[in-house]
Amino acid sequence: MTATPLSFGMVGGGQGAFIGAVHRTAAIMDGQARFVAGALSSTPRKSLASGRELGLPDDRNYPTWQEMLARESARPPHDRIDFVSIVTPNHAHFEPANAFAAAGFNVVLDKPMVMNSAQASQLAATTAKTGVVFAVTYNYTGYPLVKRAAELVRTGAIGPVRKVFVEYHQGWLATRLEAGGQKQADWRTDPKRAGAGAIGDIGSHAENLVATITGLEIEQLCADATTFVPGRAIDDDASVLLRFKGGARGVLTCSQVCVGEENNLSIRVYGENGAIAWRQENPNELWLSPREGSKRLLTRGGPEAGPIAAAATRIPPGHPEGFFEAFANIYRGVAEAIHAKREGRAPAGLATQFPTVHDGARGVRFIERVLDSTARGGAWLAF
Amino acid sequence: MTATPLSFGMVGGGQGAFIGAVHRTAAIMDGQARFVAGALSSTPRKSLASGRELGLPDDRNYPTWQEMLARESARPPHDRIDFVSIVTPNHAHFEPANAFAAAGFNVVLDKPMVMNSAQASQLAATTAKTGVVFAVTYNYTGYPLVKRAAELVRTGAIGPVRKVFVEYHQGWLATRLEAGGQKQADWRTDPKRAGAGAIGDIGSHAENLVATITGLEIEQLCADATTFVPGRAIDDDASVLLRFKGGARGVLTCSQVCVGEENNLSIRVYGENGAIAWRQENPNELWLSPREGSKRLLTRGGPEAGPIAAAATRIPPGHPEGFFEAFANIYRGVAEAIHAKREGRAPAGLATQFPTVHDGARGVRFIERVLDSTARGGAWLAF
Amino acid sequence: MTATPLSFGMVGGGQGAFIGAVHRTAAIMDGQARFVAGALSSTPRKSLASGRELGLPDDRNYPTWQEMLARESARPPHDRIDFVSIVTPNHAHFEPANAFAAAGFNVVLDKPMVMNSAQASQLAATTAKTGVVFAVTYNYTGYPLVKRAAELVRTGAIGPVRKVFVEYHQGWLATRLEAGGQKQADWRTDPKRAGAGAIGDIGSHAENLVATITGLEIEQLCADATTFVPGRAIDDDASVLLRFKGGARGVLTCSQVCVGEENNLSIRVYGENGAIAWRQENPNELWLSPREGSKRLLTRGGPEAGPIAAAATRIPPGHPEGFFEAFANIYRGVAEAIHAKREGRAPAGLATQFPTVHDGARGVRFIERVLDSTARGGAWLAF
Amino acid sequence: MTATPLSFGMVGGGQGAFIGAVHRTAAIMDGQARFVAGALSSTPRKSLASGRELGLPDDRNYPTWQEMLARESARPPHDRIDFVSIVTPNHAHFEPANAFAAAGFNVVLDKPMVMNSAQASQLAATTAKTGVVFAVTYNYTGYPLVKRAAELVRTGAIGPVRKVFVEYHQGWLATRLEAGGQKQADWRTDPKRAGAGAIGDIGSHAENLVATITGLEIEQLCADATTFVPGRAIDDDASVLLRFKGGARGVLTCSQVCVGEENNLSIRVYGENGAIAWRQENPNELWLSPREGSKRLLTRGGPEAGPIAAAATRIPPGHPEGFFEAFANIYRGVAEAIHAKREGRAPAGLATQFPTVHDGARGVRFIERVLDSTARGGAWLAF
Repeated sequence: MTATPLSFGMVGGGQGAFIGAVHRTAAIMDGQARFVAGALSSTPRKSLASGRELGLPDDRNYPTWQEMLARESARPPHDRIDFVSIVTPNHAHFEPANAFAAAGFNVVLDKPMVMNSAQASQLAATTAKTGVVFAVTYNYTGYPLVKRAAELVRTGAIGPVRKVFVEYHQGWLATRLEAGGQKQADWRTDPKRAGAGAIGDIGSHAENLVATITGLEIEQLCADATTFVPGRAIDDDASVLLRFKGGARGVLTCSQVCVGEENNLSIRVYGENGAIAWRQENPNELWLSPREGSKRLLTRGGPEAGPIAAAATRIPPGHPEGFFEAFANIYRGVAEAIHAKREGRAPAGLATQFPTVHDGARGVRFIERVLDSTARGGAWLAF
Repeated sequence: MTATPLSFGMVGGGQGAFIGAVHRTAAIMDGQARFVAGALSSTPRKSLASGRELGLPDDRNYPTWQEMLARESARPPHDRIDFVSIVTPNHAHFEPANAFAAAGFNVVLDKPMVMNSAQASQLAATTAKTGVVFAVTYNYTGYPLVKRAAELVRTGAIGPVRKVFVEYHQGWLATRLEAGGQKQADWRTDPKRAGAGAIGDIGSHAENLVATITGLEIEQLCADATTFVPGRAIDDDASVLLRFKGGARGVLTCSQVCVGEENNLSIRVYGENGAIAWRQENPNELWLSPREGSKRLLTRGGPEAGPIAAAATRIPPGHPEGFFEAFANIYRGVAEAIHAKREGRAPAGLATQFPTVHDGARGVRFIERVLDSTARGGAWLAF
Repeated sequence: MTATPLSFGMVGGGQGAFIGAVHRTAAIMDGQARFVAGALSSTPRKSLASGRELGLPDDRNYPTWQEMLARESARPPHDRIDFVSIVTPNHAHFEPANAFAAAGFNVVLDKPMVMNSAQASQLAATTAKTGVVFAVTYNYTGYPLVKRAAELVRTGAIGPVRKVFVEYHQGWLATRLEAGGQKQADWRTDPKRAGAGAIGDIGSHAENLVATITGLEIEQLCADATTFVPGRAIDDDASVLLRFKGGARGVLTCSQVCVGEENNLSIRVYGENGAIAWRQENPNELWLSPREGSKRLLTRGGPEAGPIAAAATRIPPGHPEGFFEAFANIYRGVAEAIHAKREGRAPAGLATQFPTVHDGARGVRFIERVLDSTARGGAWLAF
Repeated sequence: MTATPLSFGMVGGGQGAFIGAVHRTAAIMDGQARFVAGALSSTPRKSLASGRELGLPDDRNYPTWQEMLARESARPPHDRIDFVSIVTPNHAHFEPANAFAAAGFNVVLDKPMVMNSAQASQLAATTAKTGVVFAVTYNYTGYPLVKRAAELVRTGAIGPVRKVFVEYHQGWLATRLEAGGQKQADWRTDPKRAGAGAIGDIGSHAENLVATITGLEIEQLCADATTFVPGRAIDDDASVLLRFKGGARGVLTCSQVCVGEENNLSIRVYGENGAIAWRQENPNELWLSPREGSKRLLTRGGPEAGPIAAAATRIPPGHPEGFFEAFANIYRGVAEAIHAKREGRAPAGLATQFPTVHDGARGVRFIERVLDSTARGGAWLAF
């Protein structure tokens, strides 16, 4: 907290965007970053208007990300943005992310990372070459109790994992909302801009949550993605059976037509000696069930929270933290990683815990394999 | 309730049995039946000892079900048992059930009905021929709010069904309990006596619950049954993807190695216009989510319970009913069906709502198909 | 379970009664008692009609309890009823209870025991003199996890008790239901027949639950009973502050105008080293919070249920038991106490755990003191 | 959001403080304020050190609040702080608050507002005279669903209120934590600095929540405050019976010795026609129970959230908001009120919804009356 605040710019996230505002709130929450530059829309006029509305100085309120890249690069190093947050629709992730990373800018990129594995490989190569700090905002991994769950599972508290159930169910696309021009529905159901539907938008979060908590690697999968809403051009529901290396099994489901569900991302992991369960909509609680003995309700900041979760927590137990605070933990990690890199030291604490380009690449691969399996009638495919 | 109590006998359910005692308690709960005869074990000596312990009169305490069948048949019709409850391990269902039904006795039979579809067909033929009342104790269908859920779904309260999630998770077989001789684990994990493991013991309940509530017919399925506990000779976990006629999809999971889970049978049904959710461990509540508007918590006996659930309820809302009362509703239905048949009238109320030989046959078919799909590496099979 | 079933008669509980049917179901649930005699209404014609409807033999279907007492007394001892259940409205408790007890019959009596402390003393004297088994159906004490809670608190698992919160909230009398002639509302809001309103009908259950679980004795109380529904002649809501001997404090509230509440009896007990919480509407769960460490969710039949609760349990965890089963535990205790007395041995297990005439007397005293304090404007009174 | 950010200073909230950091995070969350000045401790050396740590410029990092007041007053009006946040221990509220308000600075002050009603009156007079914007951070009123609850109750959705239950239970002071020098426990249990214990620290939040949601005025109260932990110099638990003008009744309890409780502030309001229930630890849900019909679960941002709650919400339902966001809503209101005042217009939206000096004064009065009643043995006192 004592370090000088970093300055950051943003690509996308202008008027009408949902996730852009979340990124800005999260980035500045702990006083560790200042929002100083932006190219906030793919339409130059809207981009400039949005920047003015958000108080950007005229000289760093850019009409396009290309101009932002050029002009920030032209500033003296100490006066450039320290990182860029890219929050455009999915199809507009790769180009700016790759260009900024290639130019040596640290990058925070929304998920799913890119549109296909070829792009993912190229991006991984770019970041490896320039060594920039690169984070993908699988933001649910920022919750303290997700970190605690991962710590418990990975340190053997529940024994070898046997079965994983993960689901991410929403209901907001149960009707053809996109037909009415709702901005979020519009691009998220457009194959050109979104790439994939429910499996890309939310299924990839579920995949990431499993990987984060268990460390298991998918060996094979069998998927049944569906479009329930007539006229929709993209999947809005998918069920996936998983076989992990080492023998564990899993069930991943995602849907945007589960009426009544808001943002129900939930995971249950059963091991030989215990189990954990966590639900995003009530993120301050984590169930831990030993094989012998009663279930225990762990709370964020509570007696069994442990030091890793504690480091990702701002206020005492019983004072609920939510979505913004979890999101902000990604940014805390990024900020620490940037400071550490500059100071030539190992990053501490949360810095090692944000999702990287490799998580992003695996997520893209997952989406591809689910759609492939579906296209083949639900065949089992190697991952 | 004012009718003369029926008399019944029991096959199986002697010393050490779990489900036999449940059947007896359920059968007599409403004063509608008296337990008067039995062949309570496959071992004649234990059979007689159990009968004495339970207070059966010596002349109707039989060493074998064959003798019970012979001697009850020899009694004057008005003095015979009115029905027989068969609660033996699965492999010993078919013979007595078929023999009693063939001899004109009404039968209550535990699930899964028989060991294979060939037996199921024969049993269906027998009951069709003699016209006996025949119930399979898929007891969870006896819960008032399951009846209410079925009524809501089948009358269109949630619109056409899109997606069904059903799970039946237990943890008691997470270790090799059968190795220590625990009686329940012993036969339930023995392929010869149980036929199938988790998918037969509990997965079939889940299948039945889906069918009861939604009326949907499975068109195709893809299954991944597993044995997690080393040395176990039978499946202890399964995940099944379902495609229903008409386009709905489903996910059915069952497991007996989910540590921390007790008897977690849960179902969620999402339709175009709403959703319902119910959980057996808290059976007095049913969630109803309209597509527009807040979720509502329906309670057993509460303002939206409706007349069908009310008829299956004994006490006011807030006074919890449980497993026994639901089980007893099967017996109430059977009793009413027997009275109605004798009086030459249509059965009223619950009498039409207990699971029949056709439910039993479909359940057996389901188990077979899940194991077939698994044997073929998780292939999609027509149902 | 192996003992010969006892035979019992019933006073009250005829057509239209709620609690009478509950008593009958509970009494016979475990096959330990047979319903053989009754004087089921204060109106002889209705009494006989009810008895016929319930299948009582003509010679033991009595028009009045006085005749029942006389004629059962005249039967040879081995052929009399073994106990009588008295389930009349409150004002009609004392006379039959005292008369049957005086004549040497074992008695099960509904709560609140009698109308005033003078009657309570007399009844206590009678039972002491004849030595009959005498139970008051504070039925909520029959729940296995209430027994477990009592065991935990009394054996020091949470340390010395500091604070107790108990509430019993219902909403069914939020309107003047009695004006429409609803039978239950009619007598329960009639001062002549009920004696007290909410504080008597449900507040006394709350008082008993505190005493059962904690063993604490009330030293002083301050009460504010109210009648919210215009035109009602009796209290329908009360709040009571409690000071216990030894320094613990408590808050007891009861209400029948809490709209939306069904039968919400809940208790939380906080000690120096831990706390427990239990809610009747979900009776298969008990929270145990140690001062250091996470909360644990104990389940009926689960790993921390302990032997006392196990003895009051019929089926495995996850198979919900409810109101009837808890009620039946009172009857199991009574049956065992009767057998033990006859066999000249100490009663075992549950027999020592049903509420006695002393619990009943204390409950009557509690009602009196609450109404006294209210009458004095909410003054603190010694108990 | 488009307005120029306001600048603010802080009194108190330096190293080791809990609530100071919360205020800073909340104040800046929406980009509406910048932290530019401070006198962060009562010890000048610690004050300056804290300011440096938090990045305050040297010329506005003050050793004392008196110097801050003098030097900020000396700056040209457009360059002064726009408001001051005072987050010192309770005994150090009045002097700086009164002084800054008298000098025309807008003030945000932590609760309880001051140490006694005399101070409260004086402060009310001061703010009335200078017309400054003045908010007391009863932060729980900032939750969107508290605003929704207030709207429902005040617009008659549940009819005239009959009974209110409010509780604020924590367990962190169940042992004599202050003996070990824990900073928070130290001053909060010191009568000189805190004034009152549990009733002041958290009971006043409960009082404010009742007033905010119901608008009811307390007519009489009867209180029983207690100190459970040996050696503690201040109350750590209280139970209060309330009689409201118009006939409603209430029960308010607060405790810091309820082991296992974290920050359990909960309220239930029962009216003639419905009821609401809300719990701070799960603040994104609100139960609404109509008298006829099933309970409904309203969610923050959900279909029945209404426009007032929507205006206090940042992200869609299912994306949990928590303590910080609620707290930040107070600051949003203050910022809007300041802008409105300067622009000579009526404040919009949330600006009218933060707690004022009058709420603060009533809260102080409440604490006094509870302690008075307790001192008189629990007597009923007029409010």
